Amino acid sequence: MTIPAITQKLLAAKQIQGLSFTDLEKILGRDEVWIAALFYRQASASEDEASKLVEALGLGPDVASELTEYPLKGLGPVVPTDPLIYRFYEIMQVYGMPLKEVIQEKFGDGIMSAIDFTMDVEKETDPKGDRVKLTMSGKFLPYKKW
Amino acid sequence: MTIPAITQKLLAAKQIQGLSFTDLEKILGRDEVWIAALFYRQASASEDEASKLVEALGLGPDVASELTEYPLKGLGPVVPTDPLIYRFYEIMQVYGMPLKEVIQEKFGDGIMSAIDFTMDVEKETDPKGDRVKLTMSGKFLPYKKW
Amino acid sequence: MTIPAITQKLLAAKQIQGLSFTDLEKILGRDEVWIAALFYRQASASEDEASKLVEALGLGPDVASELTEYPLKGLGPVVPTDPLIYRFYEIMQVYGMPLKEVIQEKFGDGIMSAIDFTMDVEKETDPKGDRVKLTMSGKFLPYKKW
Amino acid sequence: MTIPAITQKLLAAKQIQGLSFTDLEKILGRDEVWIAALFYRQASASEDEASKLVEALGLGPDVASELTEYPLKGLGPVVPTDPLIYRFYEIMQVYGMPLKEVIQEKFGDGIMSAIDFTMDVEKETDPKGDRVKLTMSGKFLPYKKW
Amino acid sequence: MTIPAITQKLLAAKQIQGLSFTDLEKILGRDEVWIAALFYRQASASEDEASKLVEALGLGPDVASELTEYPLKGLGPVVPTDPLIYRFYEIMQVYGMPLKEVIQEKFGDGIMSAIDFTMDVEKETDPKGDRVKLTMSGKFLPYKKW
Amino acid sequence: MTIPAITQKLLAAKQIQGLSFTDLEKILGRDEVWIAALFYRQASASEDEASKLVEALGLGPDVASELTEYPLKGLGPVVPTDPLIYRFYEIMQVYGMPLKEVIQEKFGDGIMSAIDFTMDVEKETDPKGDRVKLTMSGKFLPYKKW
Amino acid sequence: MTIPAITQKLLAAKQIQGLSFTDLEKILGRDEVWIAALFYRQASASEDEASKLVEALGLGPDVASELTEYPLKGLGPVVPTDPLIYRFYEIMQVYGMPLKEVIQEKFGDGIMSAIDFTMDVEKETDPKGDRVKLTMSGKFLPYKKW
Amino acid sequence: MTIPAITQKLLAAKQIQGLSFTDLEKILGRDEVWIAALFYRQASASEDEASKLVEALGLGPDVASELTEYPLKGLGPVVPTDPLIYRFYEIMQVYGMPLKEVIQEKFGDGIMSAIDFTMDVEKETDPKGDRVKLTMSGKFLPYKKW
Amino acid sequence: MTIPAITQKLLAAKQIQGLSFTDLEKILGRDEVWIAALFYRQASASEDEASKLVEALGLGPDVASELTEYPLKGLGPVVPTDPLIYRFYEIMQVYGMPLKEVIQEKFGDGIMSAIDFTMDVEKETDPKGDRVKLTMSGKFLPYKKW
Amino acid sequence: MTIPAITQKLLAAKQIQGLSFTDLEKILGRDEVWIAALFYRQASASEDEASKLVEALGLGPDVASELTEYPLKGLGPVVPTDPLIYRFYEIMQVYGMPLKEVIQEKFGDGIMSAIDFTMDVEKETDPKGDRVKLTMSGKFLPYKKW
Repeated sequence: MTIPAITQKLLAAKQIQGLSFTDLEKILGRDEVWIAALFYRQASASEDEASKLVEALGLGPDVASELTEYPLKGLGPVVPTDPLIYRFYEIMQVYGMPLKEVIQEKFGDGIMSAIDFTMDVEKETDPKGDRVKLTMSGKFLPYKKW
Repeated sequence: MTIPAITQKLLAAKQIQGLSFTDLEKILGRDEVWIAALFYRQASASEDEASKLVEALGLGPDVASELTEYPLKGLGPVVPTDPLIYRFYEIMQVYGMPLKEVIQEKFGDGIMSAIDFTMDVEKETDPKGDRVKLTMSGKFLPYKKW
Repeated sequence: MTIPAITQKLLAAKQIQGLSFTDLEKILGRDEVWIAALFYRQASASEDEASKLVEALGLGPDVASELTEYPLKGLGPVVPTDPLIYRFYEIMQVYGMPLKEVIQEKFGDGIMSAIDFTMDVEKETDPKGDRVKLTMSGKFLPYKKW
Repeated sequence: MTIPAITQKLLAAKQIQGLSFTDLEKILGRDEVWIAALFYRQASASEDEASKLVEALGLGPDVASELTEYPLKGLGPVVPTDPLIYRFYEIMQVYGMPLKEVIQEKFGDGIMSAIDFTMDVEKETDPKGDRVKLTMSGKFLPYKKW
Repeated sequence: MTIPAITQKLLAAKQIQGLSFTDLEKILGRDEVWIAALFYRQASASEDEASKLVEALGLGPDVASELTEYPLKGLGPVVPTDPLIYRFYEIMQVYGMPLKEVIQEKFGDGIMSAIDFTMDVEKETDPKGDRVKLTMSGKFLPYKKW
Repeated sequence: MTIPAITQKLLAAKQIQGLSFTDLEKILGRDEVWIAALFYRQASASEDEASKLVEALGLGPDVASELTEYPLKGLGPVVPTDPLIYRFYEIMQVYGMPLKEVIQEKFGDGIMSAIDFTMDVEKETDPKGDRVKLTMSGKFLPYKKW
Repeated sequence: MTIPAITQKLLAAKQIQGLSFTDLEKILGRDEVWIAALFYRQASASEDEASKLVEALGLGPDVASELTEYPLKGLGPVVPTDPLIYRFYEIMQVYGMPLKEVIQEKFGDGIMSAIDFTMDVEKETDPKGDRVKLTMSGKFLPYKKW
Repeated sequence: MTIPAITQKLLAAKQIQGLSFTDLEKILGRDEVWIAALFYRQASASEDEASKLVEALGLGPDVASELTEYPLKGLGPVVPTDPLIYRFYEIMQVYGMPLKEVIQEKFGDGIMSAIDFTMDVEKETDPKGDRVKLTMSGKFLPYKKW
Repeated sequence: MTIPAITQKLLAAKQIQGLSFTDLEKILGRDEVWIAALFYRQASASEDEASKLVEALGLGPDVASELTEYPLKGLGPVVPTDPLIYRFYEIMQVYGMPLKEVIQEKFGDGIMSAIDFTMDVEKETDPKGDRVKLTMSGKFLPYKKW
Repeated sequence: MTIPAITQKLLAAKQIQGLSFTDLEKILGRDEVWIAALFYRQASASEDEASKLVEALGLGPDVASELTEYPLKGLGPVVPTDPLIYRFYEIMQVYGMPLKEVIQEKFGDGIMSAIDFTMDVEKETDPKGDRVKLTMSGKFLPYKKW
């Protein structure tokens, strides 16, 4: 996995400034997951978003400029080895076909968009151990016939 | 991808009975995604759950018996080709590292369990096109030190 | 590559009936490429489309019924070996990044949908050798920010 | 994917000069997709084409010289992870065999050339969302018998 | 590697009839390599060629009919394990880039066609050990600019 | 694919000297394909051959010395993406098994050597388009029984 | 396999100080395997643990700081080539399914956690040759139904 | 993964007889993990062991005979998808190099044998959740110098 | 790995006849390893050898006939999982480059033939444990220059 | 394949000193293959062996120190492309299963150790062409039952 050089710069600046992604959420008016995606060059910022971000992080206009470019996306590897990321891969290996059945039953032949898409992470306090709540919302795209 | 033979039998019976996964949700008292996972032999049923299911589907006790076995899980392939399933793989390729950053910031060093885990699919009506809402909830497991 | 059993049946019936995909285009009111995709179980038919097709091919209602199911899509293999299909893979290996540049310059950060999508094949007569003209049209989907 | 060093230089110069690929199309008398392919070293320029391009971009003769070399082509990876490029890969996974059927029915046993080949991108305005129109034209090459 | 069922039938019949590929060359008026390619369903015959072949082999019209179909080509595997076939793969691993240099120097930017292509095998008697002489001839296809 | 550093040096010197591989053929008394293989460190030179070559190219004795070392051979990748090289791979995917049949029929159980081996490239002028003629000659090695 | 740069620094310092992992076990109050995992950036330290470690090794606070970061885990490669590590991979290839049977028989449908997990290495003296005793202890996680 | 046919027969007989692997441990005088390995044809039995086992399971002498054959071992796949088995793969991805360090520090340059090897599974009751205790013991094999 | 059907037949007959490969060595006048290779269809027999073998094994002329065919060789898989076979793969991973150095130092630039090749297995009795002695002898083939 | 930096240094020094591996065999009292393995960091030296070697090669104590470290072994790649090394891989693809049969017949269920292992290369003069004689000797390890 090739982490872009700018990602290290952004993460280091964030640590120096003592800012969390939740703090940046307030500054940018964008969700923390999207901002983290911007850090990893998996999303592109408007000029205004990029300015606000580099200002908050104490970085220069060259970083802002790079953040507005449309990146080559996808960080790989094919099968992730990091346990946190692998679990999401496993979820798709185990629950992918069942999900397909349920989505098709509710919506018909088509897919959930990964482009017109949002994702949200919340911490659920639980006496038996806190839980990660992950909510995805993607537009349903029915197969066009022609 | 090798779909188990029992899956075809269960899906055919469900179609003949005119039952949806949502209907089965009421009959079994289990979520429709979990039931679809049971159909694909990615989950195992208790004897009581298996009995209720085969009764609803008009199938015999041999099917019930097989559903209580602990299956070999994971349907593959490494990179899914079906577009609906691939989109979830793509989401992890694109948003996997950002998710890791956000989860670690909120919880520390650890993972979201894919075993102590639930998943829910909802249809969100939207004038610009309906949306698939997918909610995952997994227990956070901190790395044990020893 | 696992060609579905129904595909052989449909192709054999089409040959016996002496029908071309262009003939089927007129009978179904759908494009020949889409119909060929239906033959290979890469698309699903409405009940009406399925009835018309099996009637034209002299096949039974069980075939029609199977054609209305939502299939698992993607025929593989990862790198195609058939020279006709490989050339399209090569086009993406060679012109994929240039295409990305041009599409992004015209549309911004996003993708061409492969779901809200049509494809058309034409024969262009040319004295230096006939040409295959392939036209794809896909909705542009801009990345949603959240 | 290893992007050649010259590509970064060309893209940066193009941005500084405020030129689009469409602008370069007029300057070079070549299609914008071909020019983007030249940027990525997937095509080679004549000396005249190379001179015009480096002049427009304010670059030196060493760049022009490199652009006339015959490059090693194909940018990989085997399965692209960038969503924009992946969609074209998916199209071949899903519609490859149907395309083969239709092309063979129209032309006989052979292939569409990826060498005697052109490709064009257009923006189709559409109230339901603009569309990417991609037109490929390749000479049909029948299998020689010997 | 999946050898087509018809290949076994053809090879067995050829053995029973005591015919070599060189014999078939005279009967069909086609080169023995092309005929062997037809046996392995890597080429398609005209109706006349198919009739002559099945007559010579004492096989029926169903075999002839199958031989006129346009096959899915490429027998795999990715890296061949059979030593005879692997050596040709090794030749490309070792001499592929040098060949590219020499062909480009003689012809310019383009490729040798594998479609408008013939191949011939001869036995060269040599006191130090007989030699296999393999001659390939493919049309040079220059890259089209557009 | 990792092109050795010395290859760039040799190719650049050859361009500066305005020498073709055919010119070098006369200077070294070796075939141009073998010389190109030496450039890519897929062959090793005698001290005499190395001296003649570096003299012709205006390079120093360190280059000559490196050219006499026995290299690690094979340039990869597993499946080549460059269209010129891929076509030779495709030829083996399509015609590998037919070739095996014909060679075995003529020679018995064994292989064509890729070591006691020569290869020659010629340009055949043809009004319908020039052709690449590639001739390989390899010693037949019968399987030893023991 | 990409060994982090910090790993080399830690291993070198440990050698210079003449400390074994068993020595470090006493200094940190953590098991030697966990400490070795920290060296390879497969675990993260508390600030206190990091301070103690860098003090013992004579390294600076920047090393301590890096050791508290949550690392990207998994060192690969997919199939290890080092014989010592491969043997553990082989054990899973050979005994994986039998282990699954025995664990499921004792515990039901679920897994052994690799997160709430400890591992211990001991040397067992044996006249026929010393033995490596490896003890793993992981929390059993039953599949949640929902 | 190809589970041998005999494995299904043995598992079914064991279920019919109501025997656990722990019960079989007493009958055979072998560890339950080894017996499960025998079920999956990853180990070979003596004639006496095979007789005892088939008698206990009510199976015939042909099964006993097959169990004494030396099997082809290793069940694959390269990266396991079943979550229970994957966790052991993950443990090697994460802790493989640290283990190597610790074993080498204690024993020198060599490996833990996977052949002169035993493995034991125990259930540890724990109020915070039961734990799987897995103990491996393998002979240390030092690298021979010659 | 696809073991040919004839292999099972030959191994079963050998067991029924109570013959070892060493016994067959005497009957055929060929080495036991070569005979085992013939069993696995990795070598082809003369008619005389095939007759002697099937007579000894009590099998019919159809088996003899099949044994004289020139087989497709190489049993795979890419990385063997069986521990006995894997060890030879490991030996090449670990000692392949050192072997290349030593062979080249003794012989020059070339290879050891795997075709003009013999292999012998012996049991060496040793008080510290018996040893497998494997002797390979292959003709050295120097690279031909041309 | 990543050749360690120290390997280049050792090979260069050996060339400068005009020493062959056979010469080093006498100096170190170790076999030339083992010494070549040490050069490639596939074996570790005692302090005494390392001192003798660096003295003979005119290198410093830092090289000696590195040679006593226990290396990460296995040079890859999965399928070697160098023809000399590939032939040994091919031998295992072709003769692996036959070898397994013969070894098991002589020794029972177990493996030949690749750790308690020696290997020797000899040149056999032969009027028909010199031969490489390669002798391996590995301790037989029977599978332990438990």
